Amino acid sequence: MRYQFYYWPTVQGRGEFVRLALEEAGADYVDVARRKGGETAMMKIMDDRRTGRPPFAPPFIKAGKLVIAQTANILFYLGPHLRLAPRDEATRLWIHQLQLTITDLVVEIHDTHHPITSWLYYEEQRPAAKRRTKDFWRYRVPKFLGYFERVLRRNGGQYLVGRRLTYVDLSLFQIVEGLRYAFPKRIKRFERKIPRVLALHDQVARRPRIRAYLSSKRRIPFSQWGIYRYFKELDR
Amino acid sequence: MRYQFYYWPTVQGRGEFVRLALEEAGADYVDVARRKGGETAMMKIMDDRRTGRPPFAPPFIKAGKLVIAQTANILFYLGPHLRLAPRDEATRLWIHQLQLTITDLVVEIHDTHHPITSWLYYEEQRPAAKRRTKDFWRYRVPKFLGYFERVLRRNGGQYLVGRRLTYVDLSLFQIVEGLRYAFPKRIKRFERKIPRVLALHDQVARRPRIRAYLSSKRRIPFSQWGIYRYFKELDR
Repeated sequence: MRYQFYYWPTVQGRGEFVRLALEEAGADYVDVARRKGGETAMMKIMDDRRTGRPPFAPPFIKAGKLVIAQTANILFYLGPHLRLAPRDEATRLWIHQLQLTITDLVVEIHDTHHPITSWLYYEEQRPAAKRRTKDFWRYRVPKFLGYFERVLRRNGGQYLVGRRLTYVDLSLFQIVEGLRYAFPKRIKRFERKIPRVLALHDQVARRPRIRAYLSSKRRIPFSQWGIYRYFKELDR
Repeated sequence: MRYQFYYWPTVQGRGEFVRLALEEAGADYVDVARRKGGETAMMKIMDDRRTGRPPFAPPFIKAGKLVIAQTANILFYLGPHLRLAPRDEATRLWIHQLQLTITDLVVEIHDTHHPITSWLYYEEQRPAAKRRTKDFWRYRVPKFLGYFERVLRRNGGQYLVGRRLTYVDLSLFQIVEGLRYAFPKRIKRFERKIPRVLALHDQVARRPRIRAYLSSKRRIPFSQWGIYRYFKELDR
């Protein structure tokens, strides 16, 4: 099966969670919107009256005739096909539950630099961003990453679920990568509280296909336009 | 199957999307945290070291030995059991995709009154809330509700998916109910743009089990502590 993957071509964004799964699996896929004319093709699928089940927003994939949107939903579907999730229902639901918790965390990460509205520049909402970021690191990061640390501990330490890598391990890797880009000092101070999360991150980074992907041009660099953005004053 | 449902006992919140599905299906369920000692029991499940797959937060349900959290995940699981979703995979994924879009919308609704942080009172972030609310109604409501209107139109008008009620219809009903509580004037002005969404809302409200539920004590009233809150100055 050749998958067609659709996402904004210049940012990692939510699409990156899907890209990491496709790359780790060595899947046959096309990153459509990064090809010439691809972004137009992506918009066309979303607008086309013949798309009976239109995506609300990217990312989405085409798998044969199926069009599937919403990051966690895409991963739920792809999981067993890419051998990044088992087939039994209870475990699939559990992995999905963890992925949905990652989804919640991603919104909160984005809102640290744009708490009031995405229609103002960061510079126009700086005091609000500072307050939001302070509470994010005081209350939310400990709650979210502390939760994943606990899940790792209960599972025996190496992976979040079972004895093999699943797609949600890759997503947690991406969360750590992003927090290190946006908040290098803050995450450094926090790291001693989440040794298992970091060990998982490092282990994912060493996987041959992930390592090859991260050093390839297929990996879009972090930038000031994505979910994770670096502002010195937010990383005191 | 008797389901055990766990959610904060004094607000509709995210739990309400699950309650509506259980009620419409006439399911045998216990709203555990609203019973004496129930909230303690709920916290215990979340904290207990013997819970191998601990929920991050309520709502969650127990179905036999399964513990399932994350609203959309719960509904994805319950759907076919409650006859509120078909069993075929493609349609289940599509309904789930719509439900996850509801999930995204719910975060944005909550953040209209608490854009900066949940650790400040509304009154301490009023100017930010006004700006957030303005952009929410200018850009986000048209995008989200316009999308659901389009999905209804493409499906033929009566339900979001197929020819029978599914759980995501109930969730869209709840969105309209909540917006009418929090923004009675703004939604009134917007209603002519979403005739199919409103027709669906009215049809759901007339269903015998939903009607009985809404007028029962099992339905917790809207309040100033939930996702939807009414502030006159945000509803100019």
